Amino acid sequence: MIPADAIPADDRGLLLGDGLFETLLAMNGALRDLEAHLDRMSAGCATLGLPALDRAEAERLMRQALAGVDAPRAAVRLTLTAGSGGRGLDRPSETVPRLFATAAPSAVPDGPARLTLSAVRRNEGSPASRLKTLAYLDNVLARQEARARGADEAVMLNNRGEVACAAAANLFWVREGRLFTPALACGVLAGVVRSRVIAVAAELGVGVVETAAGPCELDAAEAVFLTNSLTGLREVAGLDAVAYGPSRLAERLARALA
Amino acid sequence: MIPADAIPADDRGLLLGDGLFETLLAMNGALRDLEAHLDRMSAGCATLGLPALDRAEAERLMRQALAGVDAPRAAVRLTLTAGSGGRGLDRPSETVPRLFATAAPSAVPDGPARLTLSAVRRNEGSPASRLKTLAYLDNVLARQEARARGADEAVMLNNRGEVACAAAANLFWVREGRLFTPALACGVLAGVVRSRVIAVAAELGVGVVETAAGPCELDAAEAVFLTNSLTGLREVAGLDAVAYGPSRLAERLARALA
Repeated sequence: MIPADAIPADDRGLLLGDGLFETLLAMNGALRDLEAHLDRMSAGCATLGLPALDRAEAERLMRQALAGVDAPRAAVRLTLTAGSGGRGLDRPSETVPRLFATAAPSAVPDGPARLTLSAVRRNEGSPASRLKTLAYLDNVLARQEARARGADEAVMLNNRGEVACAAAANLFWVREGRLFTPALACGVLAGVVRSRVIAVAAELGVGVVETAAGPCELDAAEAVFLTNSLTGLREVAGLDAVAYGPSRLAERLARALA
Repeated sequence: MIPADAIPADDRGLLLGDGLFETLLAMNGALRDLEAHLDRMSAGCATLGLPALDRAEAERLMRQALAGVDAPRAAVRLTLTAGSGGRGLDRPSETVPRLFATAAPSAVPDGPARLTLSAVRRNEGSPASRLKTLAYLDNVLARQEARARGADEAVMLNNRGEVACAAAANLFWVREGRLFTPALACGVLAGVVRSRVIAVAAELGVGVVETAAGPCELDAAEAVFLTNSLTGLREVAGLDAVAYGPSRLAERLARALA
């Protein structure tokens, strides 16, 4: 009998990264953007050829995990693996996904982020680069490189040399009153907050250009910010030797998102 | 208490693909190329910034797993994860790797392989593409695509469009008496049998060119074969519409490897 906090050693998520995850912010027990996260995991299941997500069970597991956390601000992680499955790359004839959730208190990050350009590239040539999969090692390595240089986060280019994302966030930059973000085709996760920023900016009358741009575009930017579900919108203090000032547009967007 | 055949749900291998594996062939209880596999995992630990591999413990775990298999031919898998570790991408201040091994009977594959060109690309821009990591989802997707087309294995290009490897094997081709294989810089695992083929070919007076080549080179090849630890050298019957004949060079190499 395997306890609830353990996973069989033949799990394909463990052995091959064959699975997906979502990270949600919970404020005072309320799961932010729940439907958007379940939609994204459902779409990921379809892309990976996995059975449809049991949304009710996913929500139940997340609420159960959250109930054990005594903090007003919590991170909830939902993990789905392709389940147990024999040897080798081929999935078993019947795939029975494994779903579990964990939760932990989550602190607000301290001030604007310092970024560094990573040597680890995003794989724009894999459908997995547009999903939040368990095969997250490239991002772990990029983050490790950033920490070793005293930075908070890494900027990852793809193999074409285009700006893609941070290790655990989407990336936006401001130039001449316009907002830019890498196109999904650059090997970018369709972030839940990324989508919300694009929608909120449109409401504020600010155009967002989804683009394929080299890192020189970041050097020339007036402001840069990161987005993800746990920290919302986080301004960037600098990228390697380039410093950015505070951005009134980023502040307006952060207020509109809250 | 978590049983030996289960892994805690906070394991970084499970959550993020943060870890490595090796697959070895065991014939009548003898582990083939044991030192080469331990060398490769040790090198992978260094690249990923993980503590040094405990080679004696790795060998002990593999022999223990193998002892439970009643078959003359077995596949032994050694898995190393970055261990348990909090939330998010950053490793904990002290990383305690988790090591486990499994074994199962392994059949000889049936005849030459039929290949198809996959749409999933290898990430030549990540150091992980030269390692056997737990973040193996791209290879799972490529294999899935191959099976859906009735093929046995997938040929993966990298993002530059160069031939890299099969989903679970290295790739060689023969042209005008010379042997070619993708260079490691193309995003290729340094296969144990790949290295042995290069060494054996040199002993037979056959040059091996490690190259960056487009898929048209495979169309023009006289013969193609795959190598990995479980199946050794396996000839290829065809790649999509292109058929290959049997290769006397491949046969000579297979005999020399055995």
